[in-house]
Amino acid sequence: MLQRYFPILEWGRSYDRPALTSDLMAAVIVTIMLIPQSLAYAMLAGLPPVVGLYASILPLFAYALFGTSRTLAVGPVAVVSLMTASAVGAIAAPGTAEYWEAAVTLAALSGVMLVVLGLLRLGFLANLLSHPVISGFISASGVLIATSQLKHILGVKAGGETWPEMLAGLASALGDSNLATLAIGIPATLFLFWVRKGLKPALQRLGLSPRAADMTAKAGPVVAVALSILAVIGFGLEAQGVSVVGAIPQGLPPFALPSTDLALLQALWVPALLISVIGFVESVSVAQTLAAKRRQRIVPDQELIGLGASNIASALSGGYPVTGGFARSVVNFDAGAQTPAAGAFTAVGIGLASLFLTPLLFHLPNATLAATIIVAVLSLVDFKTPRQLWAYSKADFAAHAATIAVTLVSGVELGVIAGVAVGLLLYLWRASRPHAAIVGRVPGTEHFRNVERHKVLTLPHLLTIRVDESLTYLNARWLEEYVLEQVADRPALRHVVLMASAVNAIDASGLESLEAINHRLADGGIKLHLSEVKGPVMDRLKRTHFLDDLSGRVFLSQDAAFADLALDTGEEPPSPIPDEARGLI
Amino acid sequence: MLQRYFPILEWGRSYDRPALTSDLMAAVIVTIMLIPQSLAYAMLAGLPPVVGLYASILPLFAYALFGTSRTLAVGPVAVVSLMTASAVGAIAAPGTAEYWEAAVTLAALSGVMLVVLGLLRLGFLANLLSHPVISGFISASGVLIATSQLKHILGVKAGGETWPEMLAGLASALGDSNLATLAIGIPATLFLFWVRKGLKPALQRLGLSPRAADMTAKAGPVVAVALSILAVIGFGLEAQGVSVVGAIPQGLPPFALPSTDLALLQALWVPALLISVIGFVESVSVAQTLAAKRRQRIVPDQELIGLGASNIASALSGGYPVTGGFARSVVNFDAGAQTPAAGAFTAVGIGLASLFLTPLLFHLPNATLAATIIVAVLSLVDFKTPRQLWAYSKADFAAHAATIAVTLVSGVELGVIAGVAVGLLLYLWRASRPHAAIVGRVPGTEHFRNVERHKVLTLPHLLTIRVDESLTYLNARWLEEYVLEQVADRPALRHVVLMASAVNAIDASGLESLEAINHRLADGGIKLHLSEVKGPVMDRLKRTHFLDDLSGRVFLSQDAAFADLALDTGEEPPSPIPDEARGLI
Repeated sequence: MLQRYFPILEWGRSYDRPALTSDLMAAVIVTIMLIPQSLAYAMLAGLPPVVGLYASILPLFAYALFGTSRTLAVGPVAVVSLMTASAVGAIAAPGTAEYWEAAVTLAALSGVMLVVLGLLRLGFLANLLSHPVISGFISASGVLIATSQLKHILGVKAGGETWPEMLAGLASALGDSNLATLAIGIPATLFLFWVRKGLKPALQRLGLSPRAADMTAKAGPVVAVALSILAVIGFGLEAQGVSVVGAIPQGLPPFALPSTDLALLQALWVPALLISVIGFVESVSVAQTLAAKRRQRIVPDQELIGLGASNIASALSGGYPVTGGFARSVVNFDAGAQTPAAGAFTAVGIGLASLFLTPLLFHLPNATLAATIIVAVLSLVDFKTPRQLWAYSKADFAAHAATIAVTLVSGVELGVIAGVAVGLLLYLWRASRPHAAIVGRVPGTEHFRNVERHKVLTLPHLLTIRVDESLTYLNARWLEEYVLEQVADRPALRHVVLMASAVNAIDASGLESLEAINHRLADGGIKLHLSEVKGPVMDRLKRTHFLDDLSGRVFLSQDAAFADLALDTGEEPPSPIPDEARGLI
Repeated sequence: MLQRYFPILEWGRSYDRPALTSDLMAAVIVTIMLIPQSLAYAMLAGLPPVVGLYASILPLFAYALFGTSRTLAVGPVAVVSLMTASAVGAIAAPGTAEYWEAAVTLAALSGVMLVVLGLLRLGFLANLLSHPVISGFISASGVLIATSQLKHILGVKAGGETWPEMLAGLASALGDSNLATLAIGIPATLFLFWVRKGLKPALQRLGLSPRAADMTAKAGPVVAVALSILAVIGFGLEAQGVSVVGAIPQGLPPFALPSTDLALLQALWVPALLISVIGFVESVSVAQTLAAKRRQRIVPDQELIGLGASNIASALSGGYPVTGGFARSVVNFDAGAQTPAAGAFTAVGIGLASLFLTPLLFHLPNATLAATIIVAVLSLVDFKTPRQLWAYSKADFAAHAATIAVTLVSGVELGVIAGVAVGLLLYLWRASRPHAAIVGRVPGTEHFRNVERHKVLTLPHLLTIRVDESLTYLNARWLEEYVLEQVADRPALRHVVLMASAVNAIDASGLESLEAINHRLADGGIKLHLSEVKGPVMDRLKRTHFLDDLSGRVFLSQDAAFADLALDTGEEPPSPIPDEARGLI
C-alpha cells in the first residue's frame, strides 16, 4: 500500500553503486542542458529567469519520491510555459509581484488537481484529448511560442496574445529593430540550428562515438550562452541596446505560499485544469515510451500524484507549473539514468547553479534565450500529421484543424477546449448512429447476412434487424426511429426479430427503447422477438419486467427464430406454406 | 424538397370531408382542455394568464405548416413553463414589462436554435439526454412545480427558487394562510384528483361509452373553473382575500418583437438551449409514440424545424416558449384528430376564447389554476424508475439521482447539465476501458477463447490479445497501457498477436497507439502481429505506412497466426519443438 504511493520504496531498496554512477553521469548532462532551458522557459512564461531555476529543484525531488517512471525528467517545459503566460497574463502584468504570485498559485492549483485526479483514479479523463487534438495543439503552440520570441531577436517591444495580433505587432515594430540585438540573435539561432542538425555528424567525423557525440551536442546551448555573454561583455553591446537578463538573485529558492484569494482561484481554475491535463498527457506519453524500451512499467494514476506533488513543490518554492519534458527525458534516458535518483542529483546540480552561477548570467542576452526557445519549439511543429489525417480520417482531420485554428486565433485554452469539443461531438455523432443491417438467410445454410451485400432469403411478414453495437443512451433514440421506420415501410409485417449477437450491453435507456419498441409494435399488431442474446445481457434482462412484457419470444439462435416464425403469416384460415418458406422448416 | 420542409403539402393534398369532421371534433375537445391549462401554465411561468392564450394560437398554425406529426398538440407545457420562470426570473421581476419581454425573447431564441439545429441535422444532440436523466429531471420538476403552487392554495406570498428555499418560505408563511382561499383551493384540488381517477368509471357506470367517458372527464378542469368563479362571485370571496386572475385584455395576440439587447441574449442563450433540447425530447417522444400507433412516421430533424417555427410564432405574438404536450396530444389523438389541421382549428378555438371569453375569467381564483397545475404535474413524479434503475444499472441510477438532487437543490438548468455530465462521464469511463481478453486455443479446435473462462492452450513466447471494441481515441491510451502491462509480465515473450475480430473501426488515435505499441514492442525485441482484421478496417490501414512499419505480419485467421508463430521461440540453436506446440502445426 505504502509502496503504491511511494514508488521510491521499491527501487530505493536495490539501489547500488553502478546505479549511482549511471545516475550521477546522467544528472551532469541533464543539468548542463537544463540551465539555459529553465531560464528561457521562465522568460517565455513572462517570469524572471531565476524562477525557471526554482522550478527545477524541489519539483525534481518530489517526482523522485512519488513518480513511477525511472527516467522522466521533470521541470519547466515550453507548452506549459506558454499556457502559464496566457493564463497569468490575463490577470496581472508581467514583471509585477502579482504576476509571480498568480503563477505560483497556478502551480499549486494544478498540483492539487493532479493529486485529486490521481487519488480518484480519474486519469482516464485525459483520454478526451485525442492524438489529433494533442498534435494540433502542440503544433499551434510551437508556432505561437516561436512567434512570441521573435521580438527578443529583433530587440523590439511587441505584444499580442493571439497569432494575428503577434504578427501585426511584429510587423509594425519591425522598423525599430535593434541591430546589435540582431547581431546576437541571428547567429545564435543559426548556431543552435546547426548544433541540432550538423554538430553530431561533425563530432562523429572527429572520432567521437555516436553516443558521446550526441551527448556533447546537447551542451550546444551552453556554448551559445557562454559565447553570447562574452560577446556582450567584449563589445559592450548593452550600451547599444541589447537587453540582458540582469541581476539574478543568488541563493536557493525562497519559501512561497500560493494566494488564497477566491477571485484569483476562480479565474485560474480552468487554465489550471487544462495545464494539468495537457502536462499529464505529454508527460505520460514520454514516460511510457521510455519505460517500454526497458520493459519497465509506469502507473498512470500514480503519475498524476507524482506530477501533482512536483507542482505543489514548485509552488512552495516560488516556481511555476512543471511537467515531464520530452527532449530532456530522452537525454536523461540516453545518458544512462537508472532511477529517479538521477532527477534528485539534477536538482542538486541546479541548486548549485542557483547558488554560484547566477552572477555569471548577468550579461546573458535575452536574444540568446529566445534563440534557444525558437530552435527547441520549431521541432514541435508537425507538418506531416495534417496530411496523414486527411488521408486516413476526415473526422480526425476536422478535430486537428479546429484545434490548430482556434489555438492560433483565440489562444491556447480555447484551442484545447475546441479540439476536445469537436472530437467528442464527432464521436457522439458516430456513436449515435451505429451500424445496423436487415438480414436474411443465406440459402442452404443457417447463416444470416446483410440483405444489401448478399443474396439472401427474406419473408414479407418477418423482418430481422441486426444491430452491431451495444444499446446505450446514445443510440437508444436512433434504435426506436430505425426500427419504426423499417416497420412503416412493410404493411404485411407481423414479426420483428432483433438479432443481438453484437450487443455487448444494454443500459437503462436501451432497455426503455426496447420496451417502447415492443409496445409500439404491439399497438400495430406486430410481435417483437430477440435472438442470440449474450449471456450477461440476458442475466440483466431477467432482472426486469421486459421479458414478461415482450410480445414475442427470445430465441437462442436466429435460425431457430426464422424457422419458427416463417410459417406465421397471420392469414386465416392458415394459408399454404409460402414458397419461400418451404424447405426452411 | 419543398415537401420535406412543408409536410402540409403532403397531407393537405388528400384532405377530405371525413378528415375535416374528425379534426373539428378533436379541436373542440382540445380547446376546452387547453383554456384552463394555458392560463395556469402562464401563471406558473410568472406571466399574465393571457400570455398562455397567446402562446396557444399562432404556434399551433406554425406547427400545422411545418410539423411532421399528425396528432401532436403544441402549446404551453408545465416543465417548459417552469424553466421559463427560472430563466427569466433571474433577469427581471415577475409582473414587469421586462419580464414579459425576456420571455418573448427566450421563445424567439429557442425557436431560432431549434430551426438551426434542424437545418444542420443536429437532432442527435438530444441523445445526450438519457432516459434516466429525462425521467429524473421531469420527476424533480414535478415536485418543484407542485411546491411552487402551494402558496396559491394557501393564499400566501412565498418565494424561493430551489426546493429547500420554497419549503422554508412555505413553512414560515403557513401561519398567514387565507381561509377563504383554502376553502377554494382544497376542494378544487380534491375535485380535480377525483376527476382524474374517479370520474371516468363513474360516467361509465352512468352508461357512457369508455371513450365518451374519457373525453367528458377531460372537461373536468373547465367545470372546476366555472364552479370556482361562481363561488367567488356568489360568496364575495374577493373581499375575504381570495386573489383572482383579474382583468384579462380582450382580443387577439399583439404583434411582439424579441429584444435585441446583447446582454439579455447572452444571459438567455444557455436556458434557451436547454429549453429547446428538453422541449424537443419531450415532444418527439410523444409524437413517436402516437405515430407508431397508426404506423405513421415522424422526421425528427423536421420536427426541430416545426417546433422552432412554433416558438418563433409564439415570440412574434407575445407568447413564451412552447412545445408538444404529452396529455394534450394523447387527448387530441384519442379524440380522433387525423391531421395537423386539428391543431389549426384548436388555434381558432383559443382565438375565439381570447376574443370573447376573457371577461368571464375576471373572477377566476388563482387557487383553482394552482390546483389544475398541481394535479397535472404530480402525475409526472415517478417513484418506480429509481427502484428499477437501482436494480438494473447502478451507473444509470447515479445519473438519475444526480439529476433529481441537483434539480431540487440548484434549479432546473444545473439539474439538466449535471445529469448530462454524469451520464457522459460514466459513458466515457466505460468506453475508455473496453473488454479485452488474453485468448488461447481450445485444444483440438481452431477456436480461441478467453484464458480465464476456458481451458485453453497458450505458449510462453506468444501472447494473443482480443479487444472487443473499436479502437478509438477514448480507449487508445488504455490499449497501450494494457498491452505493455501484459508484456511486462512475460519475460519469454517474442510475439504479440492482436486479434481484431471485434474491431469495427480504428480512428487516427487508435492507429497511432498501434504504431506506438509496434515501436515499443520492437524496442523490447517483440514482434506485433494482427489477425482477423475486418475488410473495411484493412482497406483504411492500407492507406497508411502502418503495415510497412509493422514488425510482424497480418494473419487472415487467428489459427494461422498461432500455427505460424508457435515454433518461433527464438532459442538458438533451434530448440526441439516444444511439447505444447507439437501437433498444432
